[in-house]
Amino acid sequence: MDELLDAGPRTLAFLGPEGTFTHQAACQVVQAIGEAGGPHMELRPCRDATAIMRAVEEDGSWGVLAWENNVEGYVVPNLDMMIDAADAAAFLRVGVEVSFDAYVSADAYARYGGSERTAANDARVLAACTTITAHPHGLAQCRGFAQRHGLHAVAADSNGAACRDVQGPQVALGPSICGPLYGLVRLASHVEDYPGARTEFLAIASRADVRAWCARFRQAGVPEYESILTVIPLVTGPGVLANLLDVMRDAGLNMTSFISRPIKGHDGTYSFIATLDAAPWEPRFHDALDEIAGHGDWLRTLATYPRRERPHPPVDEWMLPQGGVRCKEDDEETIRKELLW
Amino acid sequence: MDELLDAGPRTLAFLGPEGTFTHQAACQVVQAIGEAGGPHMELRPCRDATAIMRAVEEDGSWGVLAWENNVEGYVVPNLDMMIDAADAAAFLRVGVEVSFDAYVSADAYARYGGSERTAANDARVLAACTTITAHPHGLAQCRGFAQRHGLHAVAADSNGAACRDVQGPQVALGPSICGPLYGLVRLASHVEDYPGARTEFLAIASRADVRAWCARFRQAGVPEYESILTVIPLVTGPGVLANLLDVMRDAGLNMTSFISRPIKGHDGTYSFIATLDAAPWEPRFHDALDEIAGHGDWLRTLATYPRRERPHPPVDEWMLPQGGVRCKEDDEETIRKELLW
Repeated sequence: MDELLDAGPRTLAFLGPEGTFTHQAACQVVQAIGEAGGPHMELRPCRDATAIMRAVEEDGSWGVLAWENNVEGYVVPNLDMMIDAADAAAFLRVGVEVSFDAYVSADAYARYGGSERTAANDARVLAACTTITAHPHGLAQCRGFAQRHGLHAVAADSNGAACRDVQGPQVALGPSICGPLYGLVRLASHVEDYPGARTEFLAIASRADVRAWCARFRQAGVPEYESILTVIPLVTGPGVLANLLDVMRDAGLNMTSFISRPIKGHDGTYSFIATLDAAPWEPRFHDALDEIAGHGDWLRTLATYPRRERPHPPVDEWMLPQGGVRCKEDDEETIRKELLW
Repeated sequence: MDELLDAGPRTLAFLGPEGTFTHQAACQVVQAIGEAGGPHMELRPCRDATAIMRAVEEDGSWGVLAWENNVEGYVVPNLDMMIDAADAAAFLRVGVEVSFDAYVSADAYARYGGSERTAANDARVLAACTTITAHPHGLAQCRGFAQRHGLHAVAADSNGAACRDVQGPQVALGPSICGPLYGLVRLASHVEDYPGARTEFLAIASRADVRAWCARFRQAGVPEYESILTVIPLVTGPGVLANLLDVMRDAGLNMTSFISRPIKGHDGTYSFIATLDAAPWEPRFHDALDEIAGHGDWLRTLATYPRRERPHPPVDEWMLPQGGVRCKEDDEETIRKELLW
């Protein structure tokens, strides 16, 4: 018996409409699940993250949630939802490059360019277009392209909706999935002002399914894992965080991300969310969790997934921000300016 | 001679257009500066945060930056910009309730309601309206109101732009400042689905001006401060964060927020951003900073401002998320489910 396959095809709930970066992430999750020998997946667009969580907790669906963006930081509402979920955890993590392509409808191309796809016709279509549409975030990330082509910005509810509804002398911005999805003509690729933006997504399931996934990964010999842990200390005050991290350090656990967050948004309360290079069943992590719980702290593993390939750049001088101090090297006036003491 | 007053009136740069929540925050900053005996301020809307920083660093302007929202978390691009600023720090912190009012234009009210403002006419105007406009975030936060009145959502670039441009049988959502600013009729107040959202803003200036502000606060006898500190350890690995926090704990410093963040978005590098109840000139904080710098770490004070009134709720059982474990109290199956071990 295979717990993951016996239930038959599964739905994968994602934030709709179709044609968003989340949709693109969902396609990557389907592929990763397939490569890991998981069940056949059917994609299901949902209206908001609450609906995705409901599908996971009530209908046995799996889901995709945006987790972290390298420019914007954590998607905090989704983080809060995972902390407070009755029965959900994550078992995969995928990254999507936030890169925009510029589209027009096939009708608009035929009308303003011609029946044949040529560079000259592309230029004529772009010259004929007067407006550009996307989610306001997308418009903000592609200002240079809009300015170069004299396009006036028109806000849309989502990049997917912008691409779905584009018509006439209008350019829509969206992820690469939108071209085939809506039968659009791609006039240009990677039109964002600054390349390198990336959003990370978690694939979530009921905790029983996540345990089944963990068992499968271990059977398949996946050697390394990452986990996301939430701890709520029930006693607060100076040093509570230092005491918690001493346990992690003494266990030799490498943390790759750490944030504090008010519990359910309650000002003045604290939960801590740590991402570690370890799986909860590894003895050193297991013992650290046991010790933390022994203090009476509340804790929960939000995610355990195969470790991603990650860069490990050394921190070079050129990476440091402007200004700042390293006291042994700076004069007193610089120190006073930078530290405000 | 008074460094803060001798330069004459100052401009306060904020993220435009007028009529946004940032504009409302800027008005609060002007009031706080006036109450502290600061110079006369002139508001200046800017197109983006980069333009605000340029005004501060190049033109001697002061500025307002969104810093943290209790639902969405930190405004990470602004945090990154403050860390990397050549010459800026913050000297005040203000909070704005993110609450939406529903407006129609005066012309629309006269046409669909009548010349007199009555509850019956309000109802007729609302019944005549067919669409509702705001930034997509605002539309998402007021879905219930839109549904109750059968209003179709139309995305706008900003809530300020939505209110500025509203006309005909359309409702615009925006902060309370928009009513008087654009001469609109307020049909309803606080129409958001969930009350309690709040955004915190920092008032920023050149570091010399911030030191002058700190001197003024100390002269005026302000007893308590908060500071935001950034530390970049030049050596990484397990324990680097624990070692840093040990210094803070041993100094008795109370932290109210802590996050890690890749340096300038470089994956695999770390800066730490801590908010503490202390000013850098207090001996215990001063000594801790000295010790951290003694390790060769890079550090900078991003902000020092008078301490805000904050709630200090005890962490009660009812505040805890669903599920999770406290090992001494739970059965083995619950522990396995919640910790995934």
